Order: sequence, then structure tokens, then C-alpha cells
Amino acid sequence: MNTFGRNLRLTTFGESHGKAMGGILDGMPGGIKIDMDIILRETARRRPGQSHLVTARNEKDIPELLSGLTDDMVTLGTPIGFIVRNTDQRSGDYGEMAELYRPNHADFTYDMRYGLHEPRGGGRASARETLNWVIGGAIARQLPCMKNISVKANVASIGGIKGTREELEKVVESAMKRGDSVGGVVECVIEGVPAGIGNPVFGKLHARLAQAMMSINAAKGFEYGDGFSAASAYGTEQADIFTSDAGHIHTLTNHSGGIQGGISNGMPITFKVAFKPTPTLLCDIETVDKEGHTRILRGKGRHDPCVALRAVPVVEAMTVLVLADEMLERNIK
Amino acid sequence: MNTFGRNLRLTTFGESHGKAMGGILDGMPGGIKIDMDIILRETARRRPGQSHLVTARNEKDIPELLSGLTDDMVTLGTPIGFIVRNTDQRSGDYGEMAELYRPNHADFTYDMRYGLHEPRGGGRASARETLNWVIGGAIARQLPCMKNISVKANVASIGGIKGTREELEKVVESAMKRGDSVGGVVECVIEGVPAGIGNPVFGKLHARLAQAMMSINAAKGFEYGDGFSAASAYGTEQADIFTSDAGHIHTLTNHSGGIQGGISNGMPITFKVAFKPTPTLLCDIETVDKEGHTRILRGKGRHDPCVALRAVPVVEAMTVLVLADEMLERNIK
Amino acid sequence: MNTFGRNLRLTTFGESHGKAMGGILDGMPGGIKIDMDIILRETARRRPGQSHLVTARNEKDIPELLSGLTDDMVTLGTPIGFIVRNTDQRSGDYGEMAELYRPNHADFTYDMRYGLHEPRGGGRASARETLNWVIGGAIARQLPCMKNISVKANVASIGGIKGTREELEKVVESAMKRGDSVGGVVECVIEGVPAGIGNPVFGKLHARLAQAMMSINAAKGFEYGDGFSAASAYGTEQADIFTSDAGHIHTLTNHSGGIQGGISNGMPITFKVAFKPTPTLLCDIETVDKEGHTRILRGKGRHDPCVALRAVPVVEAMTVLVLADEMLERNIK
Amino acid sequence: MNTFGRNLRLTTFGESHGKAMGGILDGMPGGIKIDMDIILRETARRRPGQSHLVTARNEKDIPELLSGLTDDMVTLGTPIGFIVRNTDQRSGDYGEMAELYRPNHADFTYDMRYGLHEPRGGGRASARETLNWVIGGAIARQLPCMKNISVKANVASIGGIKGTREELEKVVESAMKRGDSVGGVVECVIEGVPAGIGNPVFGKLHARLAQAMMSINAAKGFEYGDGFSAASAYGTEQADIFTSDAGHIHTLTNHSGGIQGGISNGMPITFKVAFKPTPTLLCDIETVDKEGHTRILRGKGRHDPCVALRAVPVVEAMTVLVLADEMLERNIK
Repeated sequence: MNTFGRNLRLTTFGESHGKAMGGILDGMPGGIKIDMDIILRETARRRPGQSHLVTARNEKDIPELLSGLTDDMVTLGTPIGFIVRNTDQRSGDYGEMAELYRPNHADFTYDMRYGLHEPRGGGRASARETLNWVIGGAIARQLPCMKNISVKANVASIGGIKGTREELEKVVESAMKRGDSVGGVVECVIEGVPAGIGNPVFGKLHARLAQAMMSINAAKGFEYGDGFSAASAYGTEQADIFTSDAGHIHTLTNHSGGIQGGISNGMPITFKVAFKPTPTLLCDIETVDKEGHTRILRGKGRHDPCVALRAVPVVEAMTVLVLADEMLERNIK
Repeated sequence: MNTFGRNLRLTTFGESHGKAMGGILDGMPGGIKIDMDIILRETARRRPGQSHLVTARNEKDIPELLSGLTDDMVTLGTPIGFIVRNTDQRSGDYGEMAELYRPNHADFTYDMRYGLHEPRGGGRASARETLNWVIGGAIARQLPCMKNISVKANVASIGGIKGTREELEKVVESAMKRGDSVGGVVECVIEGVPAGIGNPVFGKLHARLAQAMMSINAAKGFEYGDGFSAASAYGTEQADIFTSDAGHIHTLTNHSGGIQGGISNGMPITFKVAFKPTPTLLCDIETVDKEGHTRILRGKGRHDPCVALRAVPVVEAMTVLVLADEMLERNIK
Repeated sequence: MNTFGRNLRLTTFGESHGKAMGGILDGMPGGIKIDMDIILRETARRRPGQSHLVTARNEKDIPELLSGLTDDMVTLGTPIGFIVRNTDQRSGDYGEMAELYRPNHADFTYDMRYGLHEPRGGGRASARETLNWVIGGAIARQLPCMKNISVKANVASIGGIKGTREELEKVVESAMKRGDSVGGVVECVIEGVPAGIGNPVFGKLHARLAQAMMSINAAKGFEYGDGFSAASAYGTEQADIFTSDAGHIHTLTNHSGGIQGGISNGMPITFKVAFKPTPTLLCDIETVDKEGHTRILRGKGRHDPCVALRAVPVVEAMTVLVLADEMLERNIK
Repeated sequence: MNTFGRNLRLTTFGESHGKAMGGILDGMPGGIKIDMDIILRETARRRPGQSHLVTARNEKDIPELLSGLTDDMVTLGTPIGFIVRNTDQRSGDYGEMAELYRPNHADFTYDMRYGLHEPRGGGRASARETLNWVIGGAIARQLPCMKNISVKANVASIGGIKGTREELEKVVESAMKRGDSVGGVVECVIEGVPAGIGNPVFGKLHARLAQAMMSINAAKGFEYGDGFSAASAYGTEQADIFTSDAGHIHTLTNHSGGIQGGISNGMPITFKVAFKPTPTLLCDIETVDKEGHTRILRGKGRHDPCVALRAVPVVEAMTVLVLADEMLERNIK
């Protein structure tokens, strides 16, 4: 349950307020030069505290790669172990929460599942876990086969508003001032995937992307191609007519979102992910404690008002992990 | 790629116009009485040809259970093998299609993936494969632990229209008369799942449901709880406040859709699946053949104008398989 | 637990006295011509009743291939489903045994594991299950990559006696006349595996062969290369010195048995499997029933006095499945 | 390939001369108190440099547990990440070896597999990897279900000699003085496993033990119960007659080694593992370099003359991991 992938497997560990996050990326072929700067660039993109809109946690999040590489940073074909120390663990912030079930958090469900939960910052349920995913994705992105593939995610809307980055930030600021949080949609476009990648039946490429995206904290929905709007449409409106340019077969439109029958058709792969508002609010809220007594949860702590903003590099990382896995399955390195 | 599940594993085979469909359900505990009528009821629900709205294929789809059961139909704890003969294989219908790439079908992508494709009816990409899933689900539904769980799917809208069954059927009929097809949304409500079912990180219950639903032919989107509309909402609107009735902790609202942090919270689990219109049209359409030459694909054959209608028992079956797998993981039989 | 392999996966079902045996071979690439005669040849090799030395069960064991193939028997890249009907099920033979725990059989342990057991012929514990493995192996053997690899097993000794086929058969006949059974060792030599096949750590080629061989009914031991005798030897005696002939690096001796660090080195791969005597005896024997009461188990029925004799094609089939899996992992088709 | 287990999964990383060894143990239930002293005791047992008979490498091998535990060392049910820094990496010792293929080592096969190999100490092929296994086993040993199970391995013979510890050490010393190495057999007895643990067909308990044991460096053979000697025996000699004491059914003898049909029968589980002599010799030896030129490999470095001696705690650790996995599958915590 802490392993993702089949040919390229990322296994992770770490509670947000424990000693360290970390993981093992197993399945990278030998002989690939790894650029540490790419890893640092990606972890910086997801790092909190970069602007006034995201949480003020200030860890530097610099991973230490412990194995699987020569001194010259060339992969040996063996598993790449990595850790990131948690340096900013002000667990006192969460003292009261240890007793209370925070609404829309996983405190209650973890208690039901494991008989106990890590009260400091959500433990494994914290979005800090996605740091491991971004590191895994940043390594996988350096596979030669991935260098021809462009994976670009961006925020499509926040609070139902589409607009420029500035307009979207205003929506977030406004929510933040009220101690509120707000949802958003991230869209992703993948270009350069050759036709024939993916599998049928239970291994469909879009089903794997769905599973990957729905694993991201606060994700509530996934659609690819025309998605839910295809459910309101007619077949004649959705037909992606094939054509051929100098022997290169492709479609004139892309309602399908680049995948047919679970396998890529060579067109851009497009999908969207819906994220709910950050569940932590900075206003007081009624809840219960473990005994079921009514209690007031006082809003404090450091949190992002909009998960969707920080999810962008995570969506890309998980997409890269899915695609790299599929490419390696077809022995494309 | 033809296996679904971890503790309860369904492995399937069969091309729609080959000799037989079939599968192996592995992981059913011993000592459970299996009622063949429940299996026949479920396969009848998904069978084509039941009304003028769905394809006229007339196979009786009666599965033969070949192993894993005593003569009295009690499970032995060993794998249950089953087959369903394909009795209605008029493969001549597809003669022309063998040469052409049908838009929005998997002919082209299978060719890119495997170097060839089964031209008769789509092979493994045919929705006939879901017969195997319905059989697997109908057996899994008979686990004692599943008898307390209600899984009910129904069509929420067709062509963007919500309404009674009659109104929805009119939308389909109207499309059918024009030789067109139409999309739809299926919603599912699960009641009776105890709190604490599911897993965190990469094993989230909703991520597994997403993967299961996106495996169904023509699925384009998945959302749970408030789904995409949560992405337009504020945190204060989405908070599911905890309360306690005589020591039973639950939430007052259910924006979360019964799952928090990937684990059930005891509330009803709710999700929706978007299905695109059936890609096969009964009007002529331009396409290319394997050499890339422009050709006219003449619409004929027997096909459902609305996949969503027939998907209802398939959505239920896949839901049952996911839940049964999770229950068995927690050793609840 | 009924699935073997990772890239080429054989999932099986069937009780020896149920309706049918069968399986699904998933992972065969598309475009490979399958020769039914090779399958029939292999199933004939393991078929009981071929001589006076093996059981008189007379099923013809002709598998029906149900999917994954064109009409011309070319693989589609999709799973190959197959069944073999059980036509000779004289279950009356086992009436008394339903109540008794047969020594060295799995009746008692299955009861402990599942709460019940299939009394007729051992259910899944019967050696009839290996028919599924031989069918899977006979298909896998037809992969182009396997055609250059020679897998030859033979009986090395019976009852501790090495000798010609005639001498070995005399040992078996002598045991049979006394109503007794006898153990034996099967050895296997694989030629043509290129250097570099296999994996380190938990995926070692010899560990996978060990697991495969120990899965065969009545197997008690596995060794490769010099095996147990290497444990009595000194390092200077075991060194396989490297040499080079016209750039081809190989070793002068083969104490290693063709594998170093879990990966093939291009030399012949050699291993041995120890089989205990058939546990069924044709003399009376004391045992207990389910309530623990002492009872006499009267020897009757049809059984092989020497499992090792019939294990030869099974050893080969499982070896082929392991090697094909490894070759496909390296994308050698 | 770097993951072992199904319900309790150990995933490992680390080259012997890289920065660190480490792993992730996933699947430990929540609420279990972990005693660090037990982990240190087990790692101390396998540590080199404890006597003049084993290599002088002097790392302290103290693991750091990074996640999955409360401050009070109680498991959270989440993955336990751990690392052990490599502090003694005198890689200069191996300078010459980078060019040469050492006989009976994995240098040549890793080059064939990955296109390169880590020349310093064997990389992943080094026995230092087993440190990760011992740590994983020492944690798993603390499961409540394992506390009733006794797993005891010891050296049964060295160089073919059975005897007291003193006699065996003399055999090793004598080999060491000559710059030679020597093989040995480790035997293991497991007591306290209840009847009904394990699985049939491809999940047989002895097949999993075989795979686990054959994963240990230098293992050449595995046998359980009477093993290879059963292959020289008659059925009447091997029959383990059932009897009943006050309703407790057991066998009078234990030729079966505690397992029938892949499932434990409640008797002690017994097996043996053959280890070849350490391949590294301290005398000069002829070999080839990567270009196939003949070279002299000069014996030096720090190595154990007898792998079997140090394998004892590794055999126990892998046994514990197999058993814990099976117990958790049956939900026995």
C-alpha cells in the first residue's frame, strides 16, 4: 500500500512530524546520468513557504541519495534509496488536535483502521508524503525515454473561477483572509507519448492515471479527454476522425484525450483532477473527541488555503511515474 | 493486466467473438454456500437484447462453474474457474472492419500495442469482457461480509438530461433513430461499509474505486463525494462536522462521500462515473485503413446506443470486487 | 497463490475430481504461431497410464484453448484460457478416505487451513494440477526466445540407485509388487540461456527455480551446480576459472551450475530435485479420522509408485515458465 | 526484485561500499511495542569482526529507525524506514578488482545484466545486504504471533565435518591458514507454528522457505524434512503415522518436516541450507579482465573463510520474515 508501480516501483515511508521522509525507487535501468539539480528544482516547486499563499513551513527538503548510483551519479540499475530529514517539526502546534477528530481529515478513519493515529500533522496522511513522490518523479523524469515526453500541469480554475494566475491568486487570498480555504482543478497535458503505450482490461492507461491522481491528498475527481462533458454529448459529436499525413495516422480532433481502449494513440494525453478545499480552517469549528464528546477545534497552525496550487508538481510527478512504468514495460529506456 | 484485486483476485480471458469468455476467481474463503440464481440474475441484468434500446445479441450467457465448489455449491477455498461459451458469433458482420480503424475504438491502438488486433467485435476491448466481471462480482457478493453491504448503482443522467427512467429512455431512443449514440452518468451509493476499511497512500479506497470504474469500457471520468463541484467550493462549505449519537461517531453532512484519507468513515460511500457515447455509429463515417488510405466505414452491426444503461450492473460488480477485496484484507469474511 | 510468474503469468484452477482443470496464461506476446501438437506431446508425456509403472487413470487430457489466438493459432497478445475436462472421476474409490487423514497427504493440513477438504483425490493437492503447468509450459516453450534454449530433465536415481532406465524401472517394479512406493531424484540441464538473465537480491534465478521446483508435488529438496556437495568442499576446489576464447568469456568448470549472484553466466544451468516416495501405499496403514479415533486405512486406488518418474515433464514445464518469464522481463521474445 | 513478502514486505537498498544500507518494512500492524535491543542483538550476531574467523570489517551496524513508530517505539501501522550508514568503506582494497572478473563472484554476471557493476565490494551482490534482512527480521520477530514461535538455526557441518563448535572452528581455521575457504550446512528448526499455516499450489510454505533461503548469498541447496535422503527411501519408511492425544492430532514421526501439501501440520518445521565456500580466496588465481585478457587476481582483502558461520542469523531472519508474512495473511497478529 506504500508501493506504486510495477516495473518502476516507488516505495515510501515517513510521518510528517517524524524523523524523516524517504523512499526507494526500484527499477531504474543502469547507465543513466542523474542530475541532482533537476531533483532540487522539482522539490523546490512543491516546497511550502515560497509565497504568502502557501504554508510557512521552511524545511529545505534536500534529499540525500543513499544508493543505486556511482560516485559520478550514474545509475547502477539497483534501487535508489533516499531520505529527507524533517527539520521543522513544531509538534506543539498540534497538541490539542491529538484529542480531537478534525473534520475532513483522516484522524478518525486512521483510528478506525489502525487503532491509533499519529496526531502530529497527520502522519502518513499529511501532504508532506508527496515530497517523496516528487523526488521519485524527478529521478524517473531523467530516463532517456522521458526526455522526449512533455508533462505539463497547471491550475485550470480555483473556486470555480478560470483566469490568469493573478486572478486565481486573488480568489485564494480572499479565502485566506476569511480563514477559509478553496478548491481547484488542475489540468495536465502530456505530449510525445508514442502510440501503443498502455494496456487493456485492468491495466488501462487512463485507469492507472486515475488511480495515481486520486492518490494525491484532497483529490475528489478525475476525467480525461472530454471527461464528464462527454457524458452529456452524442456519438456524432465525439467521433475523433482518423486521417493520415504522409503515412502518419492520427485523429483530427482529440475528444478521446489521447487514449483509446486504455492504450495511447499518439495524440496529446489530457486529463483534469479536482481538488477539494484544504480541510484545515483557521476559524473555530465544532467537532468531537475520541469519546464522542463535543469539543471546539480552534483554528491555528500553518496550512495552505488551496491544495490545488501546490498539487501541480505532484500531478506531474505521479504522471511521470505512471508513464515511465509503462515505457519500461515496453522496454523503452 | 488481466487480473484485478489483491486478496480476491479475478483473472479473465476471452475475445468477444472467440470460443468463450471466462475467468478464475481466487481468494474466496472456504465454506460459503454459492447461489447460482444470484449469478444468473446479475448476468441477466447486463445481458444485451433485453429491450429495444440495447444490442440484439442473444447469447444466454450462462456461466459454467468448473472448480472451487463441492457438489453442494459450497466454496472449497480454492480458485473458482468459470467459462461462458460465445454462441452468437456472426463474425461476418465485421468483415470490412478488419481493414479499417474505427474512430474511438481500440483497433488502431491494439495494432500499435500488439502488432495485430482481433477484428471481430473488438476482441478483448469489447464490452463483452464485462460479463466476466459481473460473474466475478456475483460470486463475491455472496461473501457473508458483503451481505450487510448494499451496493446500488443507477443512471443519473443521459445526454445531460436528468429524469425518470422513461425520460432517459426517450433520449436514447431519439439518438438511436438518428443512428447516433449518447453518453450518460452512472451514480453509485454504498451503504453498510464499516468505518476503517481501505488504506492510505497508494491504496486509498477511492483511488481503487477510480481505477475499477475507469476500467469499464467507455468510462471518461470518476468523482466521489462532492467531486468536481468540491473544486468550486470553499472549505467552510465542505466541512463534514462530526457528532456523536449514543457513542456512535458520524458526520452531519457527507460532502466527503464516506471516505477520508482513503479510508471509509462509516457514512454512505457515493461516487459517479461518466460514460462517453457508444463509439459505434450506424451512419457512414470517414476513416483510414492500415495503410493510411481514406475509406468510408459503413455503419451497421448490433450495438447499444448508450453504454451507460448497460454499465449499471458492471459498476456494481466492480464495486463489489473492490469492497470484498478490502474486507478480506481486514479478515472480515 | 494460484498464479505463477510475473511477466508471463500462469493462473490455474481445478480439483482432480471436479469438472475440469484449467488455467489462464497471460503475457504471451502477439504474433506467435502455436503448434497444438507440441502441447499434446507434452501432456502425453505426463499422462498417467502409459506403462505398468504409472497409474491407470485414462483421461486423454486434451486441452481446449478458448482465447488469445486467431483461428490460425497465432497469439493475439491477450490471455490464453484453457480447460481440460476431467472424464474419469470414479470418486467412489475415495469414499472411505473422506473420513480419514491419509499419512503424508494434505487432507489434515487442508482441513486446518480451510475448514474442509475435497476428499476425492486430493482436490488442489492432487498431482493432476501439474497438467495445467505442463500445458502452460508447452505454450511458453513456443516463444521464439525459448526455441534456442534446451531444457532436458531426466531421472538421476530411484531409491538411491543410479543406473539405466531399465535398472531404475526394476527398482520401481520391485516396490510396486510389495505395495510400496519409492523416492527419486530428477536432474535438469538447461543449455542456451545467454549470460545476464535473472536478477539479484530477492529475484535470483536459482531462488526462482527453487520455488518452482519445490511447488511440484512430493518435492523435498533442490540444489543447483554442486549443491550440497559444495557445502563439503573447499574454495580452491570450487573456483570456476574464467577464460576467453576469441572474446567469448566463459568458465573452465561449472561448479556454479551456470548462475552467479542470481544471474546466468552463459554456462549450462544444472540443478537437481529430490522427490519423496508416493505417499499412497497399497498396504493397510494405521491413521486417525477427523475426531482423532484410530482407524485402518485400507490401501487401494490407482497411484504411481514413483512420483519422480512422472515429474520429469513437470520439472521441464516449470523450468520453461521460469525462463520464459525472465526472458520476457528482458524483452527477449 | 528488491522486495520480499506479500503481507509483510521488506524492500531494501544499498551497495556494500555506498553511503548506506537500508530498507522499508511495510505491513507491521499498529500498536506493537518494538524493543531496539532485540534489533541490536540480531545485527550484532551477524556482524563481521567478532572473532578471528570472520572478516575484520568493523562497522557498528546500528540501524536508525526513521518512521512508523511513536516516540515510545510503538508501531503506527505505517511503513518502518531504516538506514545503516556504511562507515568503513576502504574502497582502495578493490582497485584492481574493478578490472577483473573474480571467479564465482557476480562481477561478470552483473556486467552482462546491467552493462556495468559496482566494483567496490560487490555492490548489491555483497553479503552486507543481509544486514537489511536481519533488521527486518528482528522487527518482525516482535510481532505478538511470532513470540510463541521458536526459530533456531545452527551450523550442522563444515567441510563435510559434523561436530562441536570447536571442531567446526578448527576446520575453518585450517582452511583460513592456507588462504582457502570452506563450505557448510546450516540447519533450522521452527517450533510453535500452528497447523494450517501456508498455502497450496504456488504458495507452498516450503517453496517460500526455499526461495527465501536460496536468496542468501552462497546458498547452493535447500531441503526440508528428510530432504534428499527421502529420495533414496521407500514409502513405508517415510510414512508419518497420525495419532491423537486427548483430541490433539499429530504424527508419530516427522519425515515430512512439519509441512504437508505446502501447509504446516503443527509438528516442528525442519530444513537445511547448503552454503558453498566463500568465493574470495587469499591466494593468487588466474582470471580474465573485461576484454577477455588473462590476468592474475592477487588474493587480499578481508573476507570470511566460511559463509555458513555468518549465515546463521540470516537464515533465522529470512525464516521469521516468511512465517510472519504467512501469519499476517491468516490475520494472526
